Amino acid sequence: MEHILSGRAAAADLQAKLKERVLALQAGGIVPTLATVRVGEDGADASYERAIVRVCQNVGIRLQKHVLPLGCGQAALEDQLRRLDRDPETSGILLFRPLPKALDEAAAAACIRPGKDVDCMTEAALAGVYLGTSGSWAPCTAEGCMRLLAHYGIDPAGMHAVVLGRSAVVGRPLATLLLRANATVTVCHSKTRDLAAVCRSADLLVAALGKEHFVGPEYIKPGAVVLDVGVHWNAAAGKMTGDVDFDAVAPLAGAISPVPGGVGAMTSTMLAAHVVAAAEAQKE
Amino acid sequence: MEHILSGRAAAADLQAKLKERVLALQAGGIVPTLATVRVGEDGADASYERAIVRVCQNVGIRLQKHVLPLGCGQAALEDQLRRLDRDPETSGILLFRPLPKALDEAAAAACIRPGKDVDCMTEAALAGVYLGTSGSWAPCTAEGCMRLLAHYGIDPAGMHAVVLGRSAVVGRPLATLLLRANATVTVCHSKTRDLAAVCRSADLLVAALGKEHFVGPEYIKPGAVVLDVGVHWNAAAGKMTGDVDFDAVAPLAGAISPVPGGVGAMTSTMLAAHVVAAAEAQKE
Repeated sequence: MEHILSGRAAAADLQAKLKERVLALQAGGIVPTLATVRVGEDGADASYERAIVRVCQNVGIRLQKHVLPLGCGQAALEDQLRRLDRDPETSGILLFRPLPKALDEAAAAACIRPGKDVDCMTEAALAGVYLGTSGSWAPCTAEGCMRLLAHYGIDPAGMHAVVLGRSAVVGRPLATLLLRANATVTVCHSKTRDLAAVCRSADLLVAALGKEHFVGPEYIKPGAVVLDVGVHWNAAAGKMTGDVDFDAVAPLAGAISPVPGGVGAMTSTMLAAHVVAAAEAQKE
Repeated sequence: MEHILSGRAAAADLQAKLKERVLALQAGGIVPTLATVRVGEDGADASYERAIVRVCQNVGIRLQKHVLPLGCGQAALEDQLRRLDRDPETSGILLFRPLPKALDEAAAAACIRPGKDVDCMTEAALAGVYLGTSGSWAPCTAEGCMRLLAHYGIDPAGMHAVVLGRSAVVGRPLATLLLRANATVTVCHSKTRDLAAVCRSADLLVAALGKEHFVGPEYIKPGAVVLDVGVHWNAAAGKMTGDVDFDAVAPLAGAISPVPGGVGAMTSTMLAAHVVAAAEAQKE
């Protein structure tokens, strides 16, 4: 087993495969297209947006950026989404969230059909994750974790996987994906007693709780696989860091994903993969 | 803590509360009404249907039974469901499942609006369980487990809950409900290594794997709360039994639900609770 699980390497590998699929689509006259919709100019997720631009350019996905003014109102947002949903040139739609508080996210999501919901916004996509049915896509970061494991030949089947964090976008969908992959899955959170002991029982530990350097060596069973979903800007160190204290944990772990260049590097590539898959499905 | 967690007692208590809510609805001219739809006459779940009749009569819910012929076809089923969905007299709709193989369950569910989906068939209801949003109802048996715990004042917060079984109707939704109640939740299944040891780490063990008397004393931490979701007809003994070997486990458990008269006794009452809640919501 490789010791460092590089999201950059896994993403590059997936992007190469996506490029081929895009060429096949283009040969059939189809250009896979991602429409992004943002309300207000300055998003906190500008780095995510830059990553999307980079991946789409590399893979061959056409990008349409739509920006609505901050005070646009629900009707204008829904009109825009419905227009993109009807547009045969649009393969997939990404709505940047969270929306301004005055806007209703669920009602906006309902304007998108599951076949264009590349970011798991709709009830149908959520239900698909829950039921394990095909035809919809899981949240990109959760799926990125699975893809990173697969890239390094790590099969979660039979492993005890402990997921630290229970958010709707990462912790819970990832728990569902790991369960589907036949792991025994424990979800931990702020109310968990003896948290370090529970984590030490993990063959696979996923840190997705959003607390910088929370996971130290006392959380790690020697040889365990450790995925770090956390992303924090450490001003003192002048670099990105994760939920895991990498320097202290890496010597114990059997394999570990770094920050940056680990799980986070997978997210925009998974989004691109969904756009390509959506374009392929729409072709049929 | 009571040693025997009686679903009959908890259901009777809930039914008494539902009766009062039904009286309040009737005073406003509303009779909560459950429409059941069955395809083909002889269901394997005849005992569930009898329980529903009994609970509805006791609580004051009007029951409409609709039976479609076995070879009815998808269109006829969907027409029937849409008619009931539009009917202002129908508060909630229960479609008996599984359907004959020729029929499409998801397409049938899509004919029911979330507000009448008292059995968690629709994507919206599943997404609601997943996201923890209100306005839809969880599967009745999973919710029955939570209600049974609540009736006996057992708060799962901080407990390590182990759910044995990962079905879409019980194991997974129950894991989600327990997580929302701040338990640390582990889902186990046929691929789990060292199953007995994992179960022995549980403060709360839920057996929902569908194997008669699978859970023996070696699965139990002394003092643990044990819920038995299994229902088996033991012909030799001439009685219903569960997934738990009750006689062997009960002396160790801090509290345990019997079969029959445990979790199973909650299901039809939870369904009735959803019908009453639906009628109340529709009134508004």
